[in-house]
Parts: sequence; structure tokens; C-alpha cells
Amino acid sequence: MKAGFIQTYPEFGEVQSNLKRASALMEKKSAELWVLPELFSTGYQFHNIDEARNLAESIPDGPVCRALIDWAGLHKTHIIAGLAEIDGESIYNSAVFIGPDGYIGTYRKAHIFDSERAVFEAGELPLKVYDIGTARVGIMICFDWRFPETARSLALQGADIIAHPSNLVLPHCPQAMITRCLENRVYAITADRVGVEDRDLDNPLKFIGQSQIVDPDGNILYRASEDSEEVCVVEIDIEKARNKKINCENDLFSDRRVDLYKLQ
Amino acid sequence: MKAGFIQTYPEFGEVQSNLKRASALMEKKSAELWVLPELFSTGYQFHNIDEARNLAESIPDGPVCRALIDWAGLHKTHIIAGLAEIDGESIYNSAVFIGPDGYIGTYRKAHIFDSERAVFEAGELPLKVYDIGTARVGIMICFDWRFPETARSLALQGADIIAHPSNLVLPHCPQAMITRCLENRVYAITADRVGVEDRDLDNPLKFIGQSQIVDPDGNILYRASEDSEEVCVVEIDIEKARNKKINCENDLFSDRRVDLYKLQ
Repeated sequence: MKAGFIQTYPEFGEVQSNLKRASALMEKKSAELWVLPELFSTGYQFHNIDEARNLAESIPDGPVCRALIDWAGLHKTHIIAGLAEIDGESIYNSAVFIGPDGYIGTYRKAHIFDSERAVFEAGELPLKVYDIGTARVGIMICFDWRFPETARSLALQGADIIAHPSNLVLPHCPQAMITRCLENRVYAITADRVGVEDRDLDNPLKFIGQSQIVDPDGNILYRASEDSEEVCVVEIDIEKARNKKINCENDLFSDRRVDLYKLQ
Repeated sequence: MKAGFIQTYPEFGEVQSNLKRASALMEKKSAELWVLPELFSTGYQFHNIDEARNLAESIPDGPVCRALIDWAGLHKTHIIAGLAEIDGESIYNSAVFIGPDGYIGTYRKAHIFDSERAVFEAGELPLKVYDIGTARVGIMICFDWRFPETARSLALQGADIIAHPSNLVLPHCPQAMITRCLENRVYAITADRVGVEDRDLDNPLKFIGQSQIVDPDGNILYRASEDSEEVCVVEIDIEKARNKKINCENDLFSDRRVDLYKLQ
């Protein structure tokens, strides 16, 4: 199957133009699964919770979701896109999963990073894997990478591909995602953004780009630039992710020593 | 505190000269904790279980252990060294932990790699952390790196330093150990070997060296060459490993979402 990402430079608060830009990028290539950055439609650095509330939308009835549902139906594809979600009084840093037939599911970022806490609640939905026929797909968002249990939980539930919408500001994640793929024998698609947000002048953020797709052997199939918008689609061999053996003797899942681990 | 490793080129079966060589290397510098490679005294590629049985020794009464106990007492230091251990009918790929006052403990490699299975039983001892006053030290051996639960189990039990005797033949471990340090905020000391063993002509092994010490921020304090014997000692700031915060909001341990992880 073909899967890919777009790496974008969202303009803060310009939801309609960010959406239009993302669609235009995706129209440059063809894929059965697209991963978009975290908070791709709103930008990242909210001044406060009221601002976030105004820009967040409900899933799947909000305007960005509806537009993505239309787009995915038209192009017969799947999209996983990072959004600010509002549900009652709560705001989440979420990813919506949409297929050719409409809404599939939502993931709410479980590990909230730094000042995001002022705006977003930590997700409480299960780490879930979606079988879309051509692949089983799990979702995690940005800082979730730092906790090995996130990718592990998805892989143990059968994920072939981990879709990873991101807004990375620290340097370590692209290399660490290679480890995530090696330890779980999964594909990982990290869709990051580029550019700067300096709405908080005490804490201007430069996003590192370097969106990438890594295979179950830890090979970087593509790594994007640090500063430009990009579109990438690669061929994914799902069977590779379903074979957890790394040689005749070792299977990364059956070799786990659950009897010895102390993980509480 | 000062901690270090030696990177050696053991000659297969030449236990006494390998031991002498290791001691001579350690005598070049001073440290409170030394990490030696996996199977440093015997070499790696046993033809069969009988050969392993002849070269393995009991812990702590075997000749290599006794020599290391004497050496550690004389130099008032700690040593973690990889050995072939025999216990009744069982042979283990083990690491012995020795202090200035003698034997401290044993770890038996839990995740056995590839053809090691023909010789070694998988370890069944707990993943344990030893408090030596200046630091809390956990042990894992080589291929254990591939399973994030190993380092995680040690870190959650309070390890400041993960001692990691190794005989690496695949390329990924040095980079992955950076991830292990970043996700757990621990120091890791990987003591690898160099050189070639071609006792099995169908499967000659080239070891990759690149022994290294990584700090809790993921910085490589030192990475050794791919092909030479080396001695490395660095200053370790234990407080850094005891602080699991990475900014004002995030603590890598208290942020864990044990409620969401599915790790069975």
C-alpha cells in the first residue's frame, strides 16, 4: 500500500487557509493513507484556553473534519490529522481518523507536553488500533514518542503502522522513532510541521521538520527537510511489519520476558 | 563519581590472558565503577554446549570471579563483567557485580540472541538495582537493549546507571541506547568488544565496538572506535539521573499513563 505525510507550515489561527494548503499538498500525490501534523489546522501556540476554545472544533462534526471527510471520500483515501478538539468543557490535542466512507475514530494525546497543559486536557481514550483492510493503524501524537509504552501498546495490539502527527521542537524524536520501529517492528509515519511561532515572545518555538517514514528494520525510507513544506508517499510492505522475527531464533514479541518486567 | 568501561578484543578460550589484558587496561585509569564487555573472559562463539561448559565458571567461586574480586578489593572499586556462568547443568550468559568488599550479585541475560540459544539458558533472575552508595546501578546484557521493558524496569526501580556489557554485531544499538537514556533519564554504559570471531566459518562475526557512555539528556559523553581496544572514564552526575523532570511541567515518570498502556 502507499502511505505518506505532508509537512506543513500552518499559520496560527488561519484554519481555512491551512486546510486549503494541506489539501493542495495532498493533491500532488496519491496515497491510501495520509498523516498530517499535530494541530495542522490551527497552529500550536495558544495564548490561553479561551483562544483554544474558539479555534477548537468538535469531532466529527466540526468544519475541518467535515472538509476532510469530503476530501477523503472524493479521493478514496484515509487521513489522520491533528486537530484541537472541543468536547463539552474539555479541549484535547487530538487526531481524527477519517476514511473513504467517513469518520473512523479519535485519539486524544495522552502525554501532554510542557505549556500545552494550560490549554489541553490529557487524553483518556484507549490506545487503539484500527484495521482498515490494507493495514492496521495505531495513532500517537508528538511527545507520546518519549514514552516507550505508547508505541509498544499499539504494536502489541497489532499495529502495522504508527501514525504520528507531531509539532516537534526538541531534536531527539526523529532518531528515537527509529528505535520505536526497531523494537516493535512497525512502520512509523511522523508528520511534523516547520516554521516558527513567536506568539509567546518569552518562548518562541522553532519546529524542526524532519517528518519521516521508518520501516520495521529501522531504515529511514524518507526524512524531510528541517524548513520546507513537503509531500512524501512511500510503498509500505505490511507483511514486513507482521513478521516480528529478526532471525531464525528471535521473535521480538514472543521473546518478551513479561515474567521479569516491572513496569508499574 | 567516576565510571567507565574497557573495550577489549578477547581471544577465544584464552581466559587467563583475556583477564590479564582487561586488568591492564583498567589500571590505566581510575574509576569507582568499571563495566566490561559481555563474555569478556571467554570470547563469544562457542562451538557447542560442551565447549561452553568447559570454559564457564561458577559465580562467585570461579577463577575469573576470584581474580576480579581481588582486583576490585586492591583498587577499591566496582566491576560489572560479562562471564559464561555454570550453575549445575545450566549455562548462562551472565554479568557478575563485584565491589571493593567482594561479590555483590549476578544478572543472567534475559533475552538470548540468535545462536546463543544452543548454549545458554535464558536468565530467570529478577531485573534488580544495586545501591552502592555513590549510585544505584542496574545491569542488562547486549540484546536486552532491544526490549524497552528491560531498561524501563531497571529505571523504574531507581537505577541511575545502566551497566550494559555487550558483544554487538548489529549496527543499531549505540543509537538506540540514546533513546533508552532519554526515555528513562538514566546514564548508560555500554561496554562492547571489537574484533572478529570466525570459529563458525558459515557465520563469522565482526563486533562493532562503539562502546559508549550516554547521559540522561541523551548526550554521548564518549563513544569508542569501531576497532580498537580502549579505556574510558567519565564523571557521572547522579543527581541528573534522579531528576526525571525535563521542563517545569513534565516528569517522565509521573507523566506515565499506566492507566492506558496495554503491555501484556
